[in-house]
Amino acid sequence: MSALFSQDDYRFMAQALKLARKGLYTTDPNPRVGCVIVHDEQIVGEGFHRRAGEPHAEIHALTAAGERAQGATAYVTLEPCSHTGRTGPCAVALQKAKVARVVIAMQDPNPQVSGRGIRLLEEAGIEVAVGLLESEARALNPGFIARMTTQRPFVRLKMAMSLDGRTAMGSGESQWITGPEARTQVQRLRARSSAILSGVESIIMDDSRLTLRAEQLSLANADEVVQRQPLRVVLDTHLRLPLAAACLSEPGRTLVVTTPDHVAEKRERLTKAGAEVQVLPAGSDGRIDLALMLNWLAESEQVNELLVETGATLAGALLDADLVDELQLFVAPTLLGGEARPLFALPGLSRMADQRRLTIHDMRAVGRDWRIIASPQSTSATGDSKVP
Amino acid sequence: MSALFSQDDYRFMAQALKLARKGLYTTDPNPRVGCVIVHDEQIVGEGFHRRAGEPHAEIHALTAAGERAQGATAYVTLEPCSHTGRTGPCAVALQKAKVARVVIAMQDPNPQVSGRGIRLLEEAGIEVAVGLLESEARALNPGFIARMTTQRPFVRLKMAMSLDGRTAMGSGESQWITGPEARTQVQRLRARSSAILSGVESIIMDDSRLTLRAEQLSLANADEVVQRQPLRVVLDTHLRLPLAAACLSEPGRTLVVTTPDHVAEKRERLTKAGAEVQVLPAGSDGRIDLALMLNWLAESEQVNELLVETGATLAGALLDADLVDELQLFVAPTLLGGEARPLFALPGLSRMADQRRLTIHDMRAVGRDWRIIASPQSTSATGDSKVP
Repeated sequence: MSALFSQDDYRFMAQALKLARKGLYTTDPNPRVGCVIVHDEQIVGEGFHRRAGEPHAEIHALTAAGERAQGATAYVTLEPCSHTGRTGPCAVALQKAKVARVVIAMQDPNPQVSGRGIRLLEEAGIEVAVGLLESEARALNPGFIARMTTQRPFVRLKMAMSLDGRTAMGSGESQWITGPEARTQVQRLRARSSAILSGVESIIMDDSRLTLRAEQLSLANADEVVQRQPLRVVLDTHLRLPLAAACLSEPGRTLVVTTPDHVAEKRERLTKAGAEVQVLPAGSDGRIDLALMLNWLAESEQVNELLVETGATLAGALLDADLVDELQLFVAPTLLGGEARPLFALPGLSRMADQRRLTIHDMRAVGRDWRIIASPQSTSATGDSKVP
Repeated sequence: MSALFSQDDYRFMAQALKLARKGLYTTDPNPRVGCVIVHDEQIVGEGFHRRAGEPHAEIHALTAAGERAQGATAYVTLEPCSHTGRTGPCAVALQKAKVARVVIAMQDPNPQVSGRGIRLLEEAGIEVAVGLLESEARALNPGFIARMTTQRPFVRLKMAMSLDGRTAMGSGESQWITGPEARTQVQRLRARSSAILSGVESIIMDDSRLTLRAEQLSLANADEVVQRQPLRVVLDTHLRLPLAAACLSEPGRTLVVTTPDHVAEKRERLTKAGAEVQVLPAGSDGRIDLALMLNWLAESEQVNELLVETGATLAGALLDADLVDELQLFVAPTLLGGEARPLFALPGLSRMADQRRLTIHDMRAVGRDWRIIASPQSTSATGDSKVP
């Protein structure tokens, strides 16, 4: 492996990353991957992974390159696989095509297979270089990486608030406070997510559908994107979800997560109404154990990116339990006042010393609203991971 | 007057505006004004107004230009004065120097004298053009313009909040949540203001000094700037200001505004402790009438820009009464939770229909914090203008 990369290497890997991004809304649960084959400083083949079950990026690029792959350099945003999928291992395909050099942005995050594709290539006498634009490559697949390394999804908490940090009136009265551009951004957050998580209280309050709508996505491939509706996950300790809830009659699956002590009859009615009911063990306080629920979503439902769209209580509980990876706040240019509903319930927070520090990564205008992207700085003292 | 300006006109007026900005922290209560004299496309004289009592921008520029002012064009950011100050009317000085053309960014905002300087120049046969880069010129002197046209200061409300819109813990416990770069920005807001307004409750809570500190200003002319400490105005309906309050022993004046029904003895003690006490008529609820207080500050104290640094109650009352021109929110990357103190008390706000809409003008990083500049959209239904 070499740690030295040329300007051309950067240029071609940047192109491979750009290709990978084309799969942002469609590869789920697979990672987004791009590949560029370069011969004599000319791009002779390009490819990206579009959809699970379809060929990997390397296969598309090798097919396009044909015989020009011989002696070429392949730029791949993720370590080529060494296992036999529908199209055979990509590492073997690169070897068969007689590629001379493979530049890889990042190793496979799955500790079970990480490094195997690289070894396979090196054993075939191919020069391999790893780590070019690695952080950009990692940013493409935060969910896939989280699932492979922590057995949890990447948890993205989206909230819409007034400039004074409020989400609705004290009475519960609420309405969209953000404009159409912000709603398009939220639709795109949903589209890149494997699943959307909400608390039953929010569903009862707003009767949200939690679906992708092609017309709001404002994407060239919107019709293709909406063919996969993210899994809707409703946390519902006491099975209070109304049978007439709008989300139950939408395309795609609605998964109601509850605790064991419910009569089967109640579950059956929900199932008949269109839900799938998943019973998970409760914590000592009788509520759903959030960390365990996230593990379950990663392992049983292959959830990479999880978008949380919910109220102050569940949002606060996730923050409190250090289970939020990213916050996306959509800020409407309005004030709702000190009596309005807070952004987060953080009941354990009563001293300045306990404040939850964040790192703000980005703040920018989205129509007449603003979007803030931040991440919580993890606390050593992890809180309780139950949903109140 | 001509509405057509050349590229050169823009360039030279931009330079005059740049010069005017050099007086940002020192001209109070006078406006910031810059002047450039141009002969044969060459700048032959520059000037800006530095300090009340010292020459106006035009006089500095004419002195620098000397005989080259003959036949030249003068670019001035504000209509030259026609009254006799310490250096005589600037319009007359321009005429005496035999300037051929005067380009003015904006007319004098004082309706009593507006247009007089222009008329004087035109009557002397000088070509006059008005309105070049007018909005930039207006932005230099929001306070002076507000005072001249509405008999009120330009009211700038500064708050520091957590990302979830909180200013302190529910217990009242508080500490600086923003970093040193944000504090420098606040110092500069103070430095450009004629006065700083606070409620007595905030002073009691934080014992704030409300002063300029040279070392925190981070300005080349900091030592000159701190020679003028902005007037400190404390709203104190019940004369509760502690005699040992830190602000009373700082350089500069502290003005305690109260209502009539207080024993003279209490006032005297405060006066001895270093305060000036101003009695203003109370509203029907016995509290200080905010609109009237602002009129008084403009008319009796020549307050152009007023910086409000206070708590949720007074801030909310000013917003409620439509008396805030600009909001500057310093946002720290931290969460204080739903039990913490709100940004604004807006007791009249209980329905979504009553929300206070803002226009956000700017949002940018200031060190690890962010600063949001916004202005309230005025409501037709103006609230009560009393301080609770």
